[in-house]
Amino acid sequence: MRDPDRLTLVLGGARSGKSAHAESLVTAHPAPWTYVATAQAHDDEMQARIGVHQARRATGWHTLEAPLDLVAALAVLPGDRPLLLDCLTLWLSNLMLAERDIEAESAGLLRLLAARPGPSVVVSNEVGFGIVPDNALARRFRDAAGRLNQQTAAAADAVILVVAGLPMKVK
Amino acid sequence: MRDPDRLTLVLGGARSGKSAHAESLVTAHPAPWTYVATAQAHDDEMQARIGVHQARRATGWHTLEAPLDLVAALAVLPGDRPLLLDCLTLWLSNLMLAERDIEAESAGLLRLLAARPGPSVVVSNEVGFGIVPDNALARRFRDAAGRLNQQTAAAADAVILVVAGLPMKVK
Amino acid sequence: MRDPDRLTLVLGGARSGKSAHAESLVTAHPAPWTYVATAQAHDDEMQARIGVHQARRATGWHTLEAPLDLVAALAVLPGDRPLLLDCLTLWLSNLMLAERDIEAESAGLLRLLAARPGPSVVVSNEVGFGIVPDNALARRFRDAAGRLNQQTAAAADAVILVVAGLPMKVK
Repeated sequence: MRDPDRLTLVLGGARSGKSAHAESLVTAHPAPWTYVATAQAHDDEMQARIGVHQARRATGWHTLEAPLDLVAALAVLPGDRPLLLDCLTLWLSNLMLAERDIEAESAGLLRLLAARPGPSVVVSNEVGFGIVPDNALARRFRDAAGRLNQQTAAAADAVILVVAGLPMKVK
Repeated sequence: MRDPDRLTLVLGGARSGKSAHAESLVTAHPAPWTYVATAQAHDDEMQARIGVHQARRATGWHTLEAPLDLVAALAVLPGDRPLLLDCLTLWLSNLMLAERDIEAESAGLLRLLAARPGPSVVVSNEVGFGIVPDNALARRFRDAAGRLNQQTAAAADAVILVVAGLPMKVK
Repeated sequence: MRDPDRLTLVLGGARSGKSAHAESLVTAHPAPWTYVATAQAHDDEMQARIGVHQARRATGWHTLEAPLDLVAALAVLPGDRPLLLDCLTLWLSNLMLAERDIEAESAGLLRLLAARPGPSVVVSNEVGFGIVPDNALARRFRDAAGRLNQQTAAAADAVILVVAGLPMKVK
């Protein structure tokens, strides 16, 4: 029987508690759980953030780093294992820096997530509620993130917006 | 009989799908529909955005450009025709650049929308959920946009916040 | 009997109407009401904002300014008097500029608010829905504000997100 919330999108702002909420959704399923991280430890600040996220996760997790080749990484995972993908916006940022084909990569990811039989929880930042950024790259990123969030939300069974650590049901 | 959702405000962030959602609300009424665009094609980037919006709209639409004199443009439209106004924040930005009286223009617009017998759907950006902008003009714009959104929401029969393409009922 | 909404957090963006909504929640209780302002009139722009907030509040209010020593200021207030604290994010900004211990100050505030028998309404900005800020101080502030909002929301009986002047129930 198909899980009614097979694909869940967890949206939130910076420091909104979206990752912690997403983890709680995944660990509601039986272990082992797979954590797919898109973060790259470019500098001390990012390294510290990754450390905080890692420290919160207890045993039962299998962690995988996929800053760019997310589609290939997910393709070889056991399909029925609960999956946490954190996060779409960092992956998008990595793709843009590497000048990958964002449309093609996004389509590949969504096809793969739609076909997974196990529960998948995808975290993404909502970044479009500020004023128009000054620089063109930031505007391009904001547009791409908005489009990817729309596409993922359309494919998702459930969409949650996390505000101050609390979930608001969007879909 | 008065339409229970005669004036609808559709709020959203950048690339949130707010325009597409607003269009679906308007086309739920019988054609012809009037599209009032406040965008000005200052540069290639804006021209490309306008092109995407135009391409999505099929036949049945009558399009009108009113980057500044929105109140005068709306005053001569058939009052019972379904109207899509996209968007308030670009109009506000145009008014500020042209040094118009924002209070007076806003009051005129809201009076006119309140008096229209036909259904009106107004699109606006929510821009206040980021950190305080560095420059004073951006702060002034953000304040003015927040006030105009509040005034329009107070006058509206329905207010919808679009997140990742999905509508959340606010009023 | 304990008030079911003894501690309420009112979140919102810039010019969202969050302060006006918070005031309406406080004045639903019998006067006198205490207003604790964390704003400091550093410049004309901030002075003008404070003036607008003050002009809106009628008689029945006792006003207290506590830009930094908020915990000490609240500790000596009558515990059963309805309280409006506006706002957490400005207080946090003041603490950061003064290089205070944010963790300790936040913990002290939340302990005090949790122990108050009277109704308390706390206003805070949601600042994490834009793109990542360029400068490191802004990122640090955004992180600290997100954490403080999460902690306050966890302690609160009710959490409201104000959008265009309209309340959305989060908790």
